[in-house]
Amino acid sequence: MKKKPEILDSKIIASSRLFTIEQMSLEFSNGEQRDYERIIAPGAGAVLIVPVASKSQVLMIREYSAGTHRYELLFPKGKIDAGEDFMAAANRELMEELGYAAGRLSHIHSMTIAPGYLDFTTHIILAEELYQQKLEGDEPEPLEIVTCELNHFNDLLKNPELTEARSIAALYMARDYLMMQQ
Amino acid sequence: MKKKPEILDSKIIASSRLFTIEQMSLEFSNGEQRDYERIIAPGAGAVLIVPVASKSQVLMIREYSAGTHRYELLFPKGKIDAGEDFMAAANRELMEELGYAAGRLSHIHSMTIAPGYLDFTTHIILAEELYQQKLEGDEPEPLEIVTCELNHFNDLLKNPELTEARSIAALYMARDYLMMQQ
Repeated sequence: MKKKPEILDSKIIASSRLFTIEQMSLEFSNGEQRDYERIIAPGAGAVLIVPVASKSQVLMIREYSAGTHRYELLFPKGKIDAGEDFMAAANRELMEELGYAAGRLSHIHSMTIAPGYLDFTTHIILAEELYQQKLEGDEPEPLEIVTCELNHFNDLLKNPELTEARSIAALYMARDYLMMQQ
Repeated sequence: MKKKPEILDSKIIASSRLFTIEQMSLEFSNGEQRDYERIIAPGAGAVLIVPVASKSQVLMIREYSAGTHRYELLFPKGKIDAGEDFMAAANRELMEELGYAAGRLSHIHSMTIAPGYLDFTTHIILAEELYQQKLEGDEPEPLEIVTCELNHFNDLLKNPELTEARSIAALYMARDYLMMQQ
């Protein structure tokens, strides 16, 4: 196992309300020195929820995404509040964004999105035994809920609005998980 | 189909060598107004290469990732140079990072990583018919190449160094693609 590079120096070089950009000077175990920039995202990471509607169906949302400035098909996601358990965060986001709570929540994986540039973890939570329970969220507009049929998986993957890597990975994981239950 | 929010105003509020942070004021079609921040990454996006070593094996790398400050197991990736075709970028990165070129390259998907906050696309390229061909890269240290057995997929997913969502999604896609060829 290689030894991690040593951080010789680090400093904040820019920041905004949401993001902080840090510059780090690193020395690798072979003596090579390099400067890196990374984004420090606030908070304790995020949850992504896979709401299971039936043995072969999951619910996704069509949500406006400001980064790409278009509507994207993805799983509901949200930041974990300070001090909040990530399972509780998953159920809260599910109630806020979809109007459902889950009788059963299972943590199936934790993912990073750009480990070279960003220290940010998203916990993938499968939500089963759904029942209606609405919690007021802060969405600017009602989210469109889309029922996705896992038995038509290849068609689903061809949807041009389905681009987000975490949602695609979670779809595959949900398919494998639900197939094993059958 | 919902109409996209209108951008009422946008301005750069912070920047560094790599990143630019933009603030946007948006008005949704229902009249709701919100401010958003997004990161504008430089360049034309990235490629992620899935090097296929055999009918059931792909090559991954163990690479130091400054964002998470640890070694991660992932597929080779790199930015597309200005004016460069993304298939050419994939072969270049493969030669630089792994010392192989591919006789056959297939574009299997394009993904975003955080569409709410970042306008950045990664093209997933399957690289087959590998042959040795080294191109000098700018890696600070030699990359460790890891041969991954797709027939032991669940063991692979349990590797704690495998966290990156794009690499996980690409692993599933490669498994499906290679199973279809058999």
